[in-house]
Amino acid sequence: MKSWSRAVLVCMLVHVIREVLSGGHPYIVPTVGQVWPKPQMHVSQTSTLSISPDQFTFTVTDETCPLLQRALDRYLAIMFPANKQLSTARHAGRVSGKALTSFQIRLMAACEGAPYLHMDEHYEIKIDSPDEPGVGSIVAVSVWGILRGLESLSQLLIPAGDGTYFVYATQIMDFPRFSHRGFMIDTARHFLPMNKIKEMLDLMSMNKYNVLHWHIVDDQSFPYVSDVYPDLSTMGAWDSNRVYTSADIADIVSYATDRGIRVIPEFDTPGHTRSWGDGQPDLLTECYTNGSPNGLYGPIDPSKETTYDFLKALFTEVTSRFPDHYLHLGGDEVPFACWISSPSISEFMVQQNITTYSGLESYYIARLLDIVANLPTANGYMVWQEVFDNNVTLASDTVVHIWKGSGDDLENELSDVTAAGFSTLLSSCWYLNYISYGTDWHPYYECDPQNFNGTEAQKSLVVGGEACMWGEWVDRTNLIARTWPRASVVAERLWSDASVNSTSEAAPRLEEMRCRLLNRGYDAEPLGWGYCDADL
Amino acid sequence: MKSWSRAVLVCMLVHVIREVLSGGHPYIVPTVGQVWPKPQMHVSQTSTLSISPDQFTFTVTDETCPLLQRALDRYLAIMFPANKQLSTARHAGRVSGKALTSFQIRLMAACEGAPYLHMDEHYEIKIDSPDEPGVGSIVAVSVWGILRGLESLSQLLIPAGDGTYFVYATQIMDFPRFSHRGFMIDTARHFLPMNKIKEMLDLMSMNKYNVLHWHIVDDQSFPYVSDVYPDLSTMGAWDSNRVYTSADIADIVSYATDRGIRVIPEFDTPGHTRSWGDGQPDLLTECYTNGSPNGLYGPIDPSKETTYDFLKALFTEVTSRFPDHYLHLGGDEVPFACWISSPSISEFMVQQNITTYSGLESYYIARLLDIVANLPTANGYMVWQEVFDNNVTLASDTVVHIWKGSGDDLENELSDVTAAGFSTLLSSCWYLNYISYGTDWHPYYECDPQNFNGTEAQKSLVVGGEACMWGEWVDRTNLIARTWPRASVVAERLWSDASVNSTSEAAPRLEEMRCRLLNRGYDAEPLGWGYCDADL
Repeated sequence: MKSWSRAVLVCMLVHVIREVLSGGHPYIVPTVGQVWPKPQMHVSQTSTLSISPDQFTFTVTDETCPLLQRALDRYLAIMFPANKQLSTARHAGRVSGKALTSFQIRLMAACEGAPYLHMDEHYEIKIDSPDEPGVGSIVAVSVWGILRGLESLSQLLIPAGDGTYFVYATQIMDFPRFSHRGFMIDTARHFLPMNKIKEMLDLMSMNKYNVLHWHIVDDQSFPYVSDVYPDLSTMGAWDSNRVYTSADIADIVSYATDRGIRVIPEFDTPGHTRSWGDGQPDLLTECYTNGSPNGLYGPIDPSKETTYDFLKALFTEVTSRFPDHYLHLGGDEVPFACWISSPSISEFMVQQNITTYSGLESYYIARLLDIVANLPTANGYMVWQEVFDNNVTLASDTVVHIWKGSGDDLENELSDVTAAGFSTLLSSCWYLNYISYGTDWHPYYECDPQNFNGTEAQKSLVVGGEACMWGEWVDRTNLIARTWPRASVVAERLWSDASVNSTSEAAPRLEEMRCRLLNRGYDAEPLGWGYCDADL
Repeated sequence: MKSWSRAVLVCMLVHVIREVLSGGHPYIVPTVGQVWPKPQMHVSQTSTLSISPDQFTFTVTDETCPLLQRALDRYLAIMFPANKQLSTARHAGRVSGKALTSFQIRLMAACEGAPYLHMDEHYEIKIDSPDEPGVGSIVAVSVWGILRGLESLSQLLIPAGDGTYFVYATQIMDFPRFSHRGFMIDTARHFLPMNKIKEMLDLMSMNKYNVLHWHIVDDQSFPYVSDVYPDLSTMGAWDSNRVYTSADIADIVSYATDRGIRVIPEFDTPGHTRSWGDGQPDLLTECYTNGSPNGLYGPIDPSKETTYDFLKALFTEVTSRFPDHYLHLGGDEVPFACWISSPSISEFMVQQNITTYSGLESYYIARLLDIVANLPTANGYMVWQEVFDNNVTLASDTVVHIWKGSGDDLENELSDVTAAGFSTLLSSCWYLNYISYGTDWHPYYECDPQNFNGTEAQKSLVVGGEACMWGEWVDRTNLIARTWPRASVVAERLWSDASVNSTSEAAPRLEEMRCRLLNRGYDAEPLGWGYCDADL
């Protein structure tokens, strides 16, 4: 405790010195050298080691692989940016110390090739610890843990003001509370260029997100280039420059894998499919007025066998391009008006003895789930909550994605889904596209996915959550600022311990994280009045 | 009418062709070649003239001056960007025509040196008109009108798809409905770098704004470098890198003048002044608890003569740097608690026979207005509405800036201010910092500054309005996307005729304007799902 309180005193001293060197009245004064998301355990002492960029190297002591080597190169560039223009006047209260030149990377088991649900993300960091003075190391039993540790290490470095850095003697033991920590992007409402998706993956990596949920197509446009059905994008994309080819997808999957991030595509059906019909005639339901087709189209037509032939061929291709075990099948917001208007649908329902439109929707979903389960890749699937709410029979490893409701309604849904034995993800309180004036992150931070009445077994079925940035009013011009640092708030809720839930305690650390995002070159928006080194 | 309906038919044809060449289902299909803000009169015919960048020149036929020459150079670069990568597949329905090589600039009176309230901004554009076939010209009686005409002309050019452009035979007669069309930036809550302020001036110029209201200092920071009181910024700015020197201010004023934009600084007192006290001890009121100063500070202390000596010296300097006739003196949101707690304030009120704190505020303002009126520059002043609401005696040329209220309250304020004979500006419905989810621009468009019960004389005292972007949650990372294209909506309300008030009619033109902003390299955010040429 003694060293901890001494560390706190040093922290406060650094803050005081910073205040004297600068003026103005900021909303929140940022912390210095705190890790975000907050580790499970992070202790430091007052002694420091100094780091000189041209003398610092990573030394791999045990297992290695190309993915790990690429990560080490990447983090050297992050930790020691070529651009040294950032003012470090704030950190003039430095304490010099012994040099830390060789930082050990101890991966204690063979690398794995790709990230997956429930992968091990534990890591430990030891810097100048009593049992190993002068030594710095990250220890992990998986390459994913090493990645998480590298990010935390990069956040411990404090600029000394002369081009060098220092770190406090530190011990961190860390692992995530939840296994599925996702961010959803929407490339149908607006096309997002490849470099913007990669920028998002870099930002996610900084925040220890490990799933990119790619809502790739929807009513408005179909940018996914299918080789089996090329007309889907030639007719459904905004234009030929706004598409994702199989090479593009492989590029994104590779970029994400390198950062320990899974890529889960969502092909949302049977609703949200208007653009699918542009290149696939007869796929969508023709709507009728007064006995004749009226030129409008509704959800996918569940009454035709050609529909299921199409889905099988498409998803065979999709799953060959996206290697994750899971596929998101959507299943939300299916409007019934067009089905109701259609004579052929009515006839089909009579033939099949389906008496409700909800039942028809379930019939479609059941056929789709059966197709997906029988694919060569034998995928598990994620579905939006409606599919569960409508009592469709789901495979036991289905992940139910809750996106609606708040308060009691939300708690009841979490309880019902987990009581039925399904894994679940929460997004309801994390629709970041719902912007509003002023400080809006407190509800994101205070939303807890395990806040419902249930057994421990039920609670353990909550595998995590996802922050969503729906794209109706978002494209490359405002995606980054609108997402960050608000998505950092969700990242901490999903990584850190449930007890780390005080917004007033988090605020100075979040301010530091926002400045860190900015200093690394990302246009994360402000949290309140003040300044960051890189806001010029 | 015949040519007008033919023009409409051509427009529709171009739209149809564009739809066939691209896919997807956009929220709004943009117009092609419409001017924003909508001119008072804009008629076109179906014949076109073609424009080749390397053969197009401006020919000045009458008056000229360096400001005009710089504008012509600037608009050549805007009209014919070196970067020709933008896809013009949308405009493949081109109609080729005679070449337009020499465009006449007819300034019919001598240039003026700087913009001012009620300057003439009329202009006419004639391209291939019946009375002058094959000729293109802008005619105006002021250089400010030429500037507005150049912007409109730049919006008429339609890319032909092969690096050249075409324009329809066109006649425009245009002038603004309101003389004061302003945008307020806040550089106290967050410092805005010089290049960002200049970027805003360029965007304002594209939208025919003619006033930059620079809310330069406030509670949080004091970036204005005063040579008479250097401690104001050395102690009150965020740091020494986040200041505006007299050279910086001259640079901004010059940049704005070149674009026909006035720069009106606001030094808001007696409230909103916390940062002033950091470098000017004894300026602010010391607050008291239980008979002793408690370390907190309130508004400027109105009881000391040193206060007025300070204000006189400061504003003498301020007005020497900002050449506009008007100065914004603020006067809003003065909290009384600190004054109430102060024994010396109480004593002063007794001495002066001031019986209310509202009266004390008015005493201060009256002293300030007297100082400003007696400056060598004999400025007029703008004040926030509280100063009027508190019955302070105001000079007859005062502009009262209304920022509070809506509905009946707002209409009553507009009516009261104009009934008292004062010019007024409206901002109440145009606080663009108040963001919300989804399409939020309709209320901005539908807000009319002359929507109140009053005589024609009263209505004519409404000189215009200002869109405001308060900076508590805004800095260089999100300023542009948060401001544009929403500020374009206010720009049209302030320029175009009152009858141009249909959001459904405006929406496709606004979509075109948003794409135009993006194509010129500005990160204006989306209005709804879809795409623009430059959104990659």
